[in-house]
Amino acid sequence: MAKTVRIGLIGLGRIGRLHGNNLVASVRGAEVTAAADIVMNDEIRDWVSCLGIKKIYDDPVKLIQDSDVDAVFICSSTASHAELILEASKAGKHIFCEKPIHTDAGVIKHALSSVKASGVKLQVGFVRRFDHNHKKVHDTVASGAMGHPHIVKVTSRDPEPQPIEYVATSGGIFMDMTIHDFDMARYLSGSEVSEVAAYGTIMIDPGLKKYDDVDTAIIMLKFENGAIGVIENSRAARYGYDQRVEVHCDKGCVQDFNDRINTSMISTADGVFCEKPTWFFLERYNDAFIAEAQSFVDAIINDRDPEVSGLDGLMPVYIAIAAKKSLQENRPVKISEVVV
Amino acid sequence: MAKTVRIGLIGLGRIGRLHGNNLVASVRGAEVTAAADIVMNDEIRDWVSCLGIKKIYDDPVKLIQDSDVDAVFICSSTASHAELILEASKAGKHIFCEKPIHTDAGVIKHALSSVKASGVKLQVGFVRRFDHNHKKVHDTVASGAMGHPHIVKVTSRDPEPQPIEYVATSGGIFMDMTIHDFDMARYLSGSEVSEVAAYGTIMIDPGLKKYDDVDTAIIMLKFENGAIGVIENSRAARYGYDQRVEVHCDKGCVQDFNDRINTSMISTADGVFCEKPTWFFLERYNDAFIAEAQSFVDAIINDRDPEVSGLDGLMPVYIAIAAKKSLQENRPVKISEVVV
Amino acid sequence: MAKTVRIGLIGLGRIGRLHGNNLVASVRGAEVTAAADIVMNDEIRDWVSCLGIKKIYDDPVKLIQDSDVDAVFICSSTASHAELILEASKAGKHIFCEKPIHTDAGVIKHALSSVKASGVKLQVGFVRRFDHNHKKVHDTVASGAMGHPHIVKVTSRDPEPQPIEYVATSGGIFMDMTIHDFDMARYLSGSEVSEVAAYGTIMIDPGLKKYDDVDTAIIMLKFENGAIGVIENSRAARYGYDQRVEVHCDKGCVQDFNDRINTSMISTADGVFCEKPTWFFLERYNDAFIAEAQSFVDAIINDRDPEVSGLDGLMPVYIAIAAKKSLQENRPVKISEVVV
Amino acid sequence: MAKTVRIGLIGLGRIGRLHGNNLVASVRGAEVTAAADIVMNDEIRDWVSCLGIKKIYDDPVKLIQDSDVDAVFICSSTASHAELILEASKAGKHIFCEKPIHTDAGVIKHALSSVKASGVKLQVGFVRRFDHNHKKVHDTVASGAMGHPHIVKVTSRDPEPQPIEYVATSGGIFMDMTIHDFDMARYLSGSEVSEVAAYGTIMIDPGLKKYDDVDTAIIMLKFENGAIGVIENSRAARYGYDQRVEVHCDKGCVQDFNDRINTSMISTADGVFCEKPTWFFLERYNDAFIAEAQSFVDAIINDRDPEVSGLDGLMPVYIAIAAKKSLQENRPVKISEVVV
Repeated sequence: MAKTVRIGLIGLGRIGRLHGNNLVASVRGAEVTAAADIVMNDEIRDWVSCLGIKKIYDDPVKLIQDSDVDAVFICSSTASHAELILEASKAGKHIFCEKPIHTDAGVIKHALSSVKASGVKLQVGFVRRFDHNHKKVHDTVASGAMGHPHIVKVTSRDPEPQPIEYVATSGGIFMDMTIHDFDMARYLSGSEVSEVAAYGTIMIDPGLKKYDDVDTAIIMLKFENGAIGVIENSRAARYGYDQRVEVHCDKGCVQDFNDRINTSMISTADGVFCEKPTWFFLERYNDAFIAEAQSFVDAIINDRDPEVSGLDGLMPVYIAIAAKKSLQENRPVKISEVVV
Repeated sequence: MAKTVRIGLIGLGRIGRLHGNNLVASVRGAEVTAAADIVMNDEIRDWVSCLGIKKIYDDPVKLIQDSDVDAVFICSSTASHAELILEASKAGKHIFCEKPIHTDAGVIKHALSSVKASGVKLQVGFVRRFDHNHKKVHDTVASGAMGHPHIVKVTSRDPEPQPIEYVATSGGIFMDMTIHDFDMARYLSGSEVSEVAAYGTIMIDPGLKKYDDVDTAIIMLKFENGAIGVIENSRAARYGYDQRVEVHCDKGCVQDFNDRINTSMISTADGVFCEKPTWFFLERYNDAFIAEAQSFVDAIINDRDPEVSGLDGLMPVYIAIAAKKSLQENRPVKISEVVV
Repeated sequence: MAKTVRIGLIGLGRIGRLHGNNLVASVRGAEVTAAADIVMNDEIRDWVSCLGIKKIYDDPVKLIQDSDVDAVFICSSTASHAELILEASKAGKHIFCEKPIHTDAGVIKHALSSVKASGVKLQVGFVRRFDHNHKKVHDTVASGAMGHPHIVKVTSRDPEPQPIEYVATSGGIFMDMTIHDFDMARYLSGSEVSEVAAYGTIMIDPGLKKYDDVDTAIIMLKFENGAIGVIENSRAARYGYDQRVEVHCDKGCVQDFNDRINTSMISTADGVFCEKPTWFFLERYNDAFIAEAQSFVDAIINDRDPEVSGLDGLMPVYIAIAAKKSLQENRPVKISEVVV
Repeated sequence: MAKTVRIGLIGLGRIGRLHGNNLVASVRGAEVTAAADIVMNDEIRDWVSCLGIKKIYDDPVKLIQDSDVDAVFICSSTASHAELILEASKAGKHIFCEKPIHTDAGVIKHALSSVKASGVKLQVGFVRRFDHNHKKVHDTVASGAMGHPHIVKVTSRDPEPQPIEYVATSGGIFMDMTIHDFDMARYLSGSEVSEVAAYGTIMIDPGLKKYDDVDTAIIMLKFENGAIGVIENSRAARYGYDQRVEVHCDKGCVQDFNDRINTSMISTADGVFCEKPTWFFLERYNDAFIAEAQSFVDAIINDRDPEVSGLDGLMPVYIAIAAKKSLQENRPVKISEVVV
């Protein structure tokens, strides 16, 4: 393998362009040689041209088959992920795929089989594993310096609710939002989740009722290593993106706090005023997106396993399905109940 | 009623002496006129004499009947609380009673009936309501300035496990430790708990198994006002007493952090070192114990309802019973299931 | 010497009563046997009676001569300190004296000679040495773990200006306010100050001009051990009492921060709101006053040198005099220039 | 003026490449059309080629005269700055010049005259004005919401001393390091400095003695608006780059804190461990370098005054000269004494 990985970018919406910009400007060893989107317009063409990407396709499959492409970034709609993974693995191209691979676990398993058979590398886009704060918590726990983990806590709140149309097709809060936290729970505990119990409530948008969804949720988890955990979600933290994790262990507690817009502190007779957390995932996880792409490119160049595997893409989907079942049936649900 | 409340102190162990010292040194309008304990020795006699308490009894009932006593502080063993409440209410003496009133809800109800019939005031010792940090969180939420509460979170960890003999008779973690957090959940949410679901695990002392108890627990709560909550407990936070609460609301989040031993920060090539939280409840809640006793004394002097009522003493016991049932049966349990 | 030190309290204003309350309620080994003030009224008599102090004098000298008094707390007006020290040392009574001993260094030296000749113990009331935060900074530096100190910084701001009449007789900002910071600089650096250079300005009350005083000041210091330092003062920090110290050393920096009223944090769309520092020295240094009195009583009981000596009372006065001279003449002034 | 500013980069060392990378990857409206360095080697050629810069010169004057260059970034050695400013202004090219323009105020004045006569825009590289933290402090004070500033404080410490050869030619600590802080003092106070008084000491490297320099310094400042200030410097803060500012005003205090590597907090029986500040100016001021370049490009495109003017380049040099004089003569020095 040459020192440079030639990348084809599939899906040129917000997240696709984010990856494109990072690959061009900040990722060593990467070259974006082609871009594809099934929708094509002047704005997209301008962006592609500005970035110096030479080839542009309106058919992702053609991009996959381009011999100037070693690896693809699949950033298209969730529904298309699995099929594009099949195409890419058939073509022998390495795959970075945004999360979730699919909302149906059977479809994911089929795609993973194809990846395995082909021998290409697959990394799933759980970007938070590359966040400087969460990674330090993980690394400290994983080092063993704190002893065994007892309790894993994830606080994860969006600043504003998604449009209700989004929820209608996203698979619901556990599949579109908590899925990141399920991944974080596995990442921090170093263990598989064996059971979940979910409580949920609608505190923000009553319109969710007809989609059988909630906007405020707490999910307890049992891990196979004996630890327990809890995730807490809200669709509306008006002060910004609230992303904190905490692992309580034999020897103490490891936790992180939000990044803030700046470190200013204003003290007056009215109180002490500090800055809010960064507004949303683009601000908070900006550097993490770069680190994630770098890790994928390095895995190809050095021929090692990607840091986030296909299994890491599958397991959170099982947990999300179990959480939804738990909420609907108001009982703890074992992951084994929903594994296909 | 005179400007001074004459108090009889029942139970002269650690917590009884703590209240005695505070009443003498720091509570306005209080005078400790008598003290009683069924065990009597030189150490206790010295302490009583040193504090200038004039009368000493080895029979709490005699203290209750002393005409120089307007109100009693019941700080004896939990098993004796209910009976002493009955005696005091019969004698027309106001009652401050350490928590829990009893571990059996029926016994509590009987005691509360007696209090109600007699018209004396009863305050239960949920001291954390008087903590400067938790109180500010409560007051902010209760003011309505943040809108409706969505999520109530309580982190509550002891620095070191209690001796296993303690657990054998305490009623278990939910009754001896989480009961404070159940009270905090009611206090912060401004609502009754309608259902709980508990996960628990033994991570610290395997010896707990034979007592059917756990040392690490997470409990989800549903509130009648639609909010949800979560309490998280550990018997062993090696860094100190970890007591934090958080309420996420319509307009944002209100939370508090631990008091620390001091505010020093040492920055070296090895990292930045700060001080640990205060070690245990005596340090953390020292001022809260004074505020609690002051509140009781003021309630008597000004003839108003105590800030922590008999119902506040009863409800957390129901929640603890439901939590234990939930843990044993691995299912959510409605509070209505356990109400007697 | 018996296990109990019998103390006579001289001066029953705010600071005298503060010490009285602490000695009665919180200091082990102390008994307040007498109290004196040249002004006597019902409020004072009530306070004395309430605290159970048996003897009351309107002549401090008589209190000093009372055979039931082992040690005196001199809390009367600054002008009377030196004379009372003379009387007490003549009578062989140990002395705790509030700061400053006097504003005239010659008078202080005379008083210290008398103390030395008599062999009684003298402790000067630089209470900040007993603050939990500052003490930790001091102890860390003094341990040698950080290497040599390079820079000593003291931030010291009062919440509100004193009444202008106070300044008229106080000796000015360096003598009534910065004197604490001069002591802190010596305490933290472990070295004597050899030279100062002061800048000052009137930003708050133009009325100060006629008293030749300032309300905002910065003073640089040279220490005999080669380090340098800076003190910064304001008479008006509207957010509370701002008291922070910092020592930069070979191996890094040791600093502290203000105690806050509570640890609450409120996050909304408008920002993140925290609590202000404690309001004034009574709140911030409450525990330090107790520790200071305890240290004095322990020094007597264990027959060891007090933690704050007569020299510690004298040197800051020299520094204050030099600082004023520096401000007036706009040039650095060596301490040796003002030593008498 | 077209929407794109064509930039020629002069000086391809560390700081030149930093600007080059930012201009290519992150600054809107900028195109780097040429690069020059008097030293040319393969490493530089590779970097230029990789970035897609088409023209490369070993003579900066030729770059200045290139008709494809609208503006130059002068990132060469300090000694060459003034001459290149003269050349660029003669050629009618806008100028971004790294600080300091020169260490001789007369030379700077001559260069500024030439800029003024030509009408080109000149921005001086005081990058800290664009730091997210310092800028918020400035903006808060400048808004007037806090009232008048009373005290301006700047803490500025490098993690490690520069090589002694650097100091030999840099002009000393006030000219190479504190000059940023003098600019910050002017920026935060909104006022000119009228006088300084400096204390300095050698605590780190005794070898500095022969260069008549110090490694640890405190400088007091008087401002024309009546406020006073203090800057404190160390060449060796072993824990990282320590950059904090604070402005005390009528209504309270505005301050900032260091950015940290991450927000993790590890609590154990040994204490609470947090992350260190970012290591050096490249980490701390990374985004500020982008904002600075963006501001310059925007000033050209929108034909407005640069945010950092030629006067802003001149005044800190006067202050540095006065500070050195103050240190040498151990007396306050008015800026007017050193103005040429």
